[in-house]
Amino acid sequence: MNRAERAQIAMMLEVCAYPKPGNVDRCHDYTDTRFEHFLASTILVRPAFEAAERNGGRVGSLIKEAVMLTNGHSGGNTHFGAFILLIPLILGEDIAGAQRIVASTDVLDAIEFYAAFGLTEVRVVEDDDLDVNDPESVAMIREQGMTLADIMAYSAPRDMVAREWVNGFRLTRRCADLLHMHGHGRDAIVRTFLDLLASEPDTFIIKKHGVEVAERTVQRAGEVLRGERDLGAFDAECIRDGINPGSIADIVIAGIYVALGEGWRWDC
Amino acid sequence: MNRAERAQIAMMLEVCAYPKPGNVDRCHDYTDTRFEHFLASTILVRPAFEAAERNGGRVGSLIKEAVMLTNGHSGGNTHFGAFILLIPLILGEDIAGAQRIVASTDVLDAIEFYAAFGLTEVRVVEDDDLDVNDPESVAMIREQGMTLADIMAYSAPRDMVAREWVNGFRLTRRCADLLHMHGHGRDAIVRTFLDLLASEPDTFIIKKHGVEVAERTVQRAGEVLRGERDLGAFDAECIRDGINPGSIADIVIAGIYVALGEGWRWDC
Repeated sequence: MNRAERAQIAMMLEVCAYPKPGNVDRCHDYTDTRFEHFLASTILVRPAFEAAERNGGRVGSLIKEAVMLTNGHSGGNTHFGAFILLIPLILGEDIAGAQRIVASTDVLDAIEFYAAFGLTEVRVVEDDDLDVNDPESVAMIREQGMTLADIMAYSAPRDMVAREWVNGFRLTRRCADLLHMHGHGRDAIVRTFLDLLASEPDTFIIKKHGVEVAERTVQRAGEVLRGERDLGAFDAECIRDGINPGSIADIVIAGIYVALGEGWRWDC
Repeated sequence: MNRAERAQIAMMLEVCAYPKPGNVDRCHDYTDTRFEHFLASTILVRPAFEAAERNGGRVGSLIKEAVMLTNGHSGGNTHFGAFILLIPLILGEDIAGAQRIVASTDVLDAIEFYAAFGLTEVRVVEDDDLDVNDPESVAMIREQGMTLADIMAYSAPRDMVAREWVNGFRLTRRCADLLHMHGHGRDAIVRTFLDLLASEPDTFIIKKHGVEVAERTVQRAGEVLRGERDLGAFDAECIRDGINPGSIADIVIAGIYVALGEGWRWDC
């Protein structure tokens, strides 16, 4: 399995694992974004991953290409956050390499990334100076000479995916370690997802519902892990209220990619 | 979406559709072969499909390549029958083109196909003169100058996938027509699968359980369609007894490929 395939398999395994409270999985669709949309993205992204593996290239352009390849279906943006992590991981092979890739980004990467951002309907914070829908943002990036790593540093306080670029892929590393700890196969993914959900407030939930809801989700996931709350009921409650920990899902995809490269096996 | 991607999307949509009585789907795994195995094959087959689309090439070799790319995981052979239909369809673009491809196969295609067959654990009829495990078979193919189309004609009475090569992809065509008739989206796949199950004895079931079980399955699928039998109960019964209509699944994949090329949409 080459790196592009490993990234695709990671995307497939993440969305198949169930039950994952609040997220699309084998048992759940959202009305507009269904299971098949996620799997179609997993298939259609291949040329961007393959280009990254074979020819290297610019992180910002490759993220934009991945978004363009996968937003042609009616399900909208499915994996923007995952691509932000997977593209440097494929380019750099592993976390150490991804850190080198991140450190080498420049202003053009930042501008290409903003073009990718503009293709998605990703939630942005309202009073953000670097609003993706604001043409002034690109002017400001050019003027201040911001690299893509600078953009991620700027977003890091409010976005746990961007934070991975800043802190050396800390949660991606932790996710891979948890997978190794929980053993091979499907159940380890669910258990790892719950471990992260019980310890990290998901910034996607914060942007959508506020910090209180995100913290309550952490608390309830902990109750599930301690056997004090039913997993199925918690899942149903999250789905009902539209509480979907999408950023943790992105990090789990990156963690599966890393773990697969270290010998973790999905098919046993 | 190019032809390779269309074939991959067809494989993905088929395995996701549910409930499909007796087969692996979003709600069911078999112990040795799970949902994720089918989806991994959908991802890993890409280079064979891409080679077929970009460079053309020999049907027998491309089927062998597809099998080799997808039997590295623990789930064993997942799509051998589907590849027998998809490779000529990708090479030829549509059914008319696939018929031309089929007509042009030669002895080398037959020998390569036998090599692919040898990589799978596909069920063979016991008193078959062209037993894949018998080295004499290849000698006989050479001696008699049998083409791959001849092999399929030889297998057609006992194998509905091989029969597609002989009769101009009749059921593949019917499947695509049924999809158009049942409308766009996921439910049309399930309804089409049931229509075929209620009219065609699945030759995979015949090889595994005999003709009586296959005919009883046709009858019961008809009862489901007429509202005289519960779909969920029928599905559970098939799963319990290991009655999996694998050849109809292969034909449904080919039918989805054709329908997608004619404007049928999965994502609405």
